[in-house]
Amino acid sequence: MSKFVILRDAYGTTQCIIMNQNLNLANISLESVILVEGEVVLRPKEEINSSLSTGEIEVQMKSFDILNDVENLPFNLRNYQKPKEQLRLQHRYIDLRFPEMQNNLRQRSLMLHNMRRFLVEDKGFVEVETPTLFCRTPGGAREFVVPTHHSGLFYSLVQSPQQFKQMLMAGGIDRYFQVARCYRDESTRPDRQPEFTQLDIELSFTNMNGVLSLIEDLIFDTYMKPIQNPPFKRMTYREAIENYGSDKPNISHGLKFSNITHLFSNNIYKDNFAAYALPYPSSVGKLTSKSKEAIKGIRKRYSNSKVSLNENISKEFGENVSKSLLQLLGENNATVIVIGDKDECCSCLGEIRLLLISLLKSKGLLQDESILKPLWIVDFPLFLKGENGELETCHHPFTAPHPDDTSLLDTNPLKVRSLAYDLVINGNEIGGGSVRVHNAELQEKLLKILNINVSKLSHFMNALKSGCPPHAGIALGIDRLTALGCNAESIRDVIAFPKSHDGKDPLSGAPNPISDEDRKYYHIPLVSQ
Amino acid sequence: MSKFVILRDAYGTTQCIIMNQNLNLANISLESVILVEGEVVLRPKEEINSSLSTGEIEVQMKSFDILNDVENLPFNLRNYQKPKEQLRLQHRYIDLRFPEMQNNLRQRSLMLHNMRRFLVEDKGFVEVETPTLFCRTPGGAREFVVPTHHSGLFYSLVQSPQQFKQMLMAGGIDRYFQVARCYRDESTRPDRQPEFTQLDIELSFTNMNGVLSLIEDLIFDTYMKPIQNPPFKRMTYREAIENYGSDKPNISHGLKFSNITHLFSNNIYKDNFAAYALPYPSSVGKLTSKSKEAIKGIRKRYSNSKVSLNENISKEFGENVSKSLLQLLGENNATVIVIGDKDECCSCLGEIRLLLISLLKSKGLLQDESILKPLWIVDFPLFLKGENGELETCHHPFTAPHPDDTSLLDTNPLKVRSLAYDLVINGNEIGGGSVRVHNAELQEKLLKILNINVSKLSHFMNALKSGCPPHAGIALGIDRLTALGCNAESIRDVIAFPKSHDGKDPLSGAPNPISDEDRKYYHIPLVSQ
Repeated sequence: MSKFVILRDAYGTTQCIIMNQNLNLANISLESVILVEGEVVLRPKEEINSSLSTGEIEVQMKSFDILNDVENLPFNLRNYQKPKEQLRLQHRYIDLRFPEMQNNLRQRSLMLHNMRRFLVEDKGFVEVETPTLFCRTPGGAREFVVPTHHSGLFYSLVQSPQQFKQMLMAGGIDRYFQVARCYRDESTRPDRQPEFTQLDIELSFTNMNGVLSLIEDLIFDTYMKPIQNPPFKRMTYREAIENYGSDKPNISHGLKFSNITHLFSNNIYKDNFAAYALPYPSSVGKLTSKSKEAIKGIRKRYSNSKVSLNENISKEFGENVSKSLLQLLGENNATVIVIGDKDECCSCLGEIRLLLISLLKSKGLLQDESILKPLWIVDFPLFLKGENGELETCHHPFTAPHPDDTSLLDTNPLKVRSLAYDLVINGNEIGGGSVRVHNAELQEKLLKILNINVSKLSHFMNALKSGCPPHAGIALGIDRLTALGCNAESIRDVIAFPKSHDGKDPLSGAPNPISDEDRKYYHIPLVSQ
Repeated sequence: MSKFVILRDAYGTTQCIIMNQNLNLANISLESVILVEGEVVLRPKEEINSSLSTGEIEVQMKSFDILNDVENLPFNLRNYQKPKEQLRLQHRYIDLRFPEMQNNLRQRSLMLHNMRRFLVEDKGFVEVETPTLFCRTPGGAREFVVPTHHSGLFYSLVQSPQQFKQMLMAGGIDRYFQVARCYRDESTRPDRQPEFTQLDIELSFTNMNGVLSLIEDLIFDTYMKPIQNPPFKRMTYREAIENYGSDKPNISHGLKFSNITHLFSNNIYKDNFAAYALPYPSSVGKLTSKSKEAIKGIRKRYSNSKVSLNENISKEFGENVSKSLLQLLGENNATVIVIGDKDECCSCLGEIRLLLISLLKSKGLLQDESILKPLWIVDFPLFLKGENGELETCHHPFTAPHPDDTSLLDTNPLKVRSLAYDLVINGNEIGGGSVRVHNAELQEKLLKILNINVSKLSHFMNALKSGCPPHAGIALGIDRLTALGCNAESIRDVIAFPKSHDGKDPLSGAPNPISDEDRKYYHIPLVSQ
């Protein structure tokens, strides 16, 4: 017969022992909720557990009352028996009792509270709630639609408060923020949620430096992990691509590219040619066949690039190239090189870099630094070339072009840089923003270039024309920021009730069929099969 | 030629005068955004305007730059020319520049921030964001549906986080709150918004007194208007109905009913009979024919009640009744009495009371008190009788019955009181909550009485069975609370971008038709006309 019971609440555990021999603890099943009456006493010295905050005391139970009984549990709350994620999500109300989940939600709440204190109390910001039922934003992600009882008329769920926050700038709310719920129907992408949270910020009468330094102070003051002192490092988009093959590099890992195009200058390759080398510690030894296979997989997706591993370089390009590389990169480094099409060989080598980083980490040759080093990526291109050769926006259609490049808008738009910026922490894109267009004429010009129907944004254009000050802003992804701060593997671990793959709710089974009455009310006939 | 310009920003106005005679202010149109360079100097003594915070200084302009020009404005920012609400909402980005709108949004932000500080810092609460895309809640208001790309499957937009917050209690988040966005499709009711904000709170291991005193301290500490010291007055539902004819009376206005049924005890009326008198200051004089018409209108809707005005009482009921009333109510009072069906005569007299209150106010015989006096209404009935005689929930299906009345659940359910409570401030229902059912067996019994399919709530029932502590909570309507605190006429005046009548967005024109591509993706065929 057991003589004690461990009480657990949200703040820890307490040991309760039986004093009254008539109490029958056998009636209490695991995870039941009980009310204990008794006396808190010091434990005998030999039983003190200094690793517990309650390890010096115990409760001498006089009586207990079962407030809620438990019959069967789908899983136990033991870390060594931790169930698969699907089962955890299906019974989230039990899963949330694991100490890590308690910690994640409580840390998230505290971080957001501290962010609000910083913005409201230190910086004079105003939190404004903006609608989520709105009209479709032209040219963005896929938006959920919400039928109304007006036949054929639908709201869209906002993908961000972008238009509203810019209209607030026109409305004299000169320092706006919101912890905003946003919606995107991207059910086919892994690690995405149909609804997510961003810290949305916009300021009037500012510029890029104003936003960047505000956010640096915000993150430094409120983050749950040690982070380097502001100012954070800045890097142009081109530098990031040419040095790390990514617009969100983890620079704390080193492994920077060398541009070795000159070694091939007298070669047979075409004009649009480039060559990059990626040096890595030779102490890692020969690449395993598994690594080589993975590299082969990457190579396949970049048909205009040629990947050469360390051991093949002299064979493939001759002793001269091999010697020059050794001189350039040093004796302690092995190298991978990629040559070929300028536009893609950095991306190809960037993927190989990530592969090598995880290889080095798995061998203990590379550690994450204890202090986080955020990085700003700036000077993004304003436009990208779409699949059919049309111009697409790189950030969103309201992003201001770099003032030095406006003359190129008509002649060479792909060369125009923007005033957009991304915040990257250890290889994670944490947020992004830009200086916005406040001039209606320029905005109209950009919309035309992007082939977006201006008439669908007439309310927005009218706001710019009504006396809208210059403004800029940013949005930070709270789910990802919290996951990084809590060492959570997935953003689902820092969301109380996340959807699983494909947008399904493992808890309630949503989405579900609707009633005939709702179908009629919302004018949604059954699809004939 | 004008020689000065008034600069306005979110914080006030500043007078700028021309020093350089070459500056041509005629180029600046009203509401344009300009950058002024100049020197701040003290005004000449005779020009000091002590009613302005900037009234002692002016700026001597050396140069200016137009940052954004304005061509035409749909209306001017002058209070004496204030446009109709429809036009204001259509150009909300201009309307928000009115000082009252600036004040409303900034006060709202500050109140919510102070509420968060109180809950997080003083009381150890955790803010948890819960999903808005969920399954339909059986037995509630009409919920918007959100189609998915899975044919025939829909999310519902939550009408409140009720289920989630109770599951959080089961999950060990013992003190939860959230400033939550909620959705109800009630487009036919005036002064409602399809999306609205509530401060949603839930606690474990508490009771009604625990919640009530928490909320009293919260409101007292954070409200923007003077409010009486806690504890707030409590009144049972029956008292409220029998004394004021309403479950949300403004008690600061007095005008309490007298039960005068005994005066008619030997009369010809039936068993289910009651009579109530409403005394009011006779100084108001004779009721105008307009007031009498209005009373006639109310009377029509209560066919089982008979309304008698002061001057007719002796004629209709004889001198004895008239004399007794005079004794009972005093010489300075006139009176209206309603006799008839017990169940409706209080409601009828309650409507007449509101009418008399506005009459007294219009004559200056009644003022709102300078200090707000909140009121708790308790002991609501658990069930109401629906239109077809079936039992409906008075609060929601998760409300605990009053422990003294549980034995009546089977025998006389309409007599069962609940552990629900409403917070009423000056006649406005500001919030409501209840102690919840934490026992699965009792919950199942209640769902059966309400004819709600238990299988649609299996996730919720499993949470109760998994070891869910006793808990209680409340939700406060932030839109209404702010409107009351800011003396706003409508909740639309404390919402940045409200919808107008029938759920339409005057700004963007939403809801709108959707594209054929979206129709296909979401399996929504056109309704054949």
